[in-house]
Amino acid sequence: MSAIPRITIAEAGRHAGETVELAGWLYNLRKSGKIIFPQVRDGSGIMQCVCVKAQVDEALFETLKNLTQESSLLIRGSIRAEPRAPGGYELDVTGAEVVQRVPEERPYPITPKEHGTEFLFDHRHLHLRSRRQHAILRVRHEVIKAIRDYFDSNGFTLVDCPIFTPAACEGTTTLFEVDYFEDEKVFLTQSGQLYNEATAMAFGKTYCFGPTFRAEKSKTRRHLTEFWMVEPEMAYATLDDVKRVSEELICFLVSRVLENRQAELTVLERDIAKLEAVKAPFPRISYDEAVETLRKKGSEIEWGGDFGGTDETLLSEDYDRPVMVDRFPSQIKAFYFEPDPERPELALGVDVIASEGYGEIVGGGQRIYSLELLEQRLREHNLPAEAFEWYLDLRRFGGVPHAGFGMGVERAVAWLCGLDHIRETIAFPRMLYRTRP
Amino acid sequence: MSAIPRITIAEAGRHAGETVELAGWLYNLRKSGKIIFPQVRDGSGIMQCVCVKAQVDEALFETLKNLTQESSLLIRGSIRAEPRAPGGYELDVTGAEVVQRVPEERPYPITPKEHGTEFLFDHRHLHLRSRRQHAILRVRHEVIKAIRDYFDSNGFTLVDCPIFTPAACEGTTTLFEVDYFEDEKVFLTQSGQLYNEATAMAFGKTYCFGPTFRAEKSKTRRHLTEFWMVEPEMAYATLDDVKRVSEELICFLVSRVLENRQAELTVLERDIAKLEAVKAPFPRISYDEAVETLRKKGSEIEWGGDFGGTDETLLSEDYDRPVMVDRFPSQIKAFYFEPDPERPELALGVDVIASEGYGEIVGGGQRIYSLELLEQRLREHNLPAEAFEWYLDLRRFGGVPHAGFGMGVERAVAWLCGLDHIRETIAFPRMLYRTRP
Repeated sequence: MSAIPRITIAEAGRHAGETVELAGWLYNLRKSGKIIFPQVRDGSGIMQCVCVKAQVDEALFETLKNLTQESSLLIRGSIRAEPRAPGGYELDVTGAEVVQRVPEERPYPITPKEHGTEFLFDHRHLHLRSRRQHAILRVRHEVIKAIRDYFDSNGFTLVDCPIFTPAACEGTTTLFEVDYFEDEKVFLTQSGQLYNEATAMAFGKTYCFGPTFRAEKSKTRRHLTEFWMVEPEMAYATLDDVKRVSEELICFLVSRVLENRQAELTVLERDIAKLEAVKAPFPRISYDEAVETLRKKGSEIEWGGDFGGTDETLLSEDYDRPVMVDRFPSQIKAFYFEPDPERPELALGVDVIASEGYGEIVGGGQRIYSLELLEQRLREHNLPAEAFEWYLDLRRFGGVPHAGFGMGVERAVAWLCGLDHIRETIAFPRMLYRTRP
Repeated sequence: MSAIPRITIAEAGRHAGETVELAGWLYNLRKSGKIIFPQVRDGSGIMQCVCVKAQVDEALFETLKNLTQESSLLIRGSIRAEPRAPGGYELDVTGAEVVQRVPEERPYPITPKEHGTEFLFDHRHLHLRSRRQHAILRVRHEVIKAIRDYFDSNGFTLVDCPIFTPAACEGTTTLFEVDYFEDEKVFLTQSGQLYNEATAMAFGKTYCFGPTFRAEKSKTRRHLTEFWMVEPEMAYATLDDVKRVSEELICFLVSRVLENRQAELTVLERDIAKLEAVKAPFPRISYDEAVETLRKKGSEIEWGGDFGGTDETLLSEDYDRPVMVDRFPSQIKAFYFEPDPERPELALGVDVIASEGYGEIVGGGQRIYSLELLEQRLREHNLPAEAFEWYLDLRRFGGVPHAGFGMGVERAVAWLCGLDHIRETIAFPRMLYRTRP
């Protein structure tokens, strides 16, 4: 359309003094007599533009002055350094073309006024354009990239696990059922762990990273029915390796977000100091100690019970960084946990509980590697041995001590961003009463 | 267990002359009188070990000599450079401990002899340990990493799309249905594209990358019911941008695999020269030209028909690199394609057909951005406008020309590895008659 180079707002700093074109949407418009200040967003940033009536074509000035929120436009002008502007630069407008004008009769539905949560999530396809949602999803991207970078550069092979699974990993009550072909039923995966154990025996260290599904009827601020989870698994590894790797991973994520997403954390008004405190070593306590602490704090938990959300929050209060709780009673853990040789009623598992009341972000441990013990556990849990034959094979043919964990991406992002509710951490959240848009 | 440092086989080169410990599995065992050669794999590589009877404890020699395939063991010794060994190093054994011995009565089921395909995929949890499957999945990891690196370093934001979707992107006959809560039904995504269009309007350039599902009753070497797809989408972009970006992406993938996965390609006996020929620019032909060429080659295709697998193979024969075919008849494309302004019966779409008969690996194009035309198309395709209200909003509130594409990971990996069947490109393939293990 013009010989003027088109750039993104993120690139503006490299074009100071040049005339450029931006392709974006009208984010906001301030008017001050004979000067108007259209704020244009293009997905890479927001640029404050300055349009002076005396310096442009009159029709152009009128067009911009009456432009409606979220109308799409090409805007041209010269980039000028302006220390007071949020991005450090402004654009002095010389020309513009409106691509699509949002009509006054049906204006952009999300305005600067307050909207209810239901309304915003019904309009999630537009809501994502807001500065806040933008910031959260860019942190999410950074977290996902950092997770992959961590495992890719530490000798792990990515081996994704199937979504369609015949067997259930942790009971069948929270499984979504799918109609496969000709009356066959399959389930949507809740965890890739059982498959990870097979791939770890093939590759030594592996991870899978994809969506997982839980048909939980919980309507809490920590639950989604569809969420992303990364799950590493290591052959010849123990509970201590799980603690070491998960601690390293969490510290790496925090440092990457602090390094690359400061601007987004500022938009979110995140208390940076609280993230800067997240450094190894994390405190390590036993389940026994945790129960004792909780009871002192007034929780009604009994030894043998699982932590509720409130218990996790109470535990996190004592620390400025995540806390690791290990050696839970086997009865509240899945069938595949290796028992503690010194106290066989305990499972060699660990939960990592985020600071500031964000709950469990990592759960994992050491898996049973003895064929006999695993067969016994399947019987105790009334699980059909036949469906687990392939899983038992992993102990028949070169069984080794092995361990791994899972980290939920959305909980990690909620914590890093300091969000009240997990629904903002994913572009199109799926919850008990939410499957649209 | 010992003060001897434990290393991975991949690290052996940095420890020549040192005494180390490997933790792995017995891959193979050659015996030659008073010397035995256990080949040990640990997931990072395979090490030929040398155990001389006169130099070790007699019990150790007997243990190793009688060790069964895939038994797990710790093995110690000194690393010695050996140019004739596959990895360039050998280990002179000084000690070993068997972790789990596979019993003779129930030996490892996959032996060097030929096995049928069904048998191998029934034992996929073990089959992945083989040198060939290992090589394929390492290429897959490299491809996925390269895809993400490409988009992450070219200004795209990762915004994953939902798996649970209320609406169907390309017809409902190939959708898997899921029982959600209280008699609600949702479908598993076939493509993130409609959602991508929303996120591209928020972020400018986005991509999603996750599993997608098609309930196709096809039993061909190119179909899986569950497969991974990357889908970029760009605001203010056209068909030409799709061609440029997909060409760049494919060249980048090929160069990264050639750079980092030579050893794996050798295991797979891939003709490297054929991959080295894959360089920009790719030939660009129109659908009209493609049909003409196909008819000359004896295909019975008529203008207006879609290409079959055989047609794609015939087309690829003329080129040493992928070929781009554009401007298909709108009637065989989805409802959302922008029509060619010069010939409105054609869609501004492009398919990229891999060389060597590997079929379509990329499909994409420019999307309709006019509200009126999109409404008309929904009517023509008998699609319920209500379910697409949010999608129509993208044209009401700042509609812009935009374009994108999808690339199937498994087809790309099959092509890069030179495989006959797509089922080997994923750890646990799901097909019409295959949902286990």
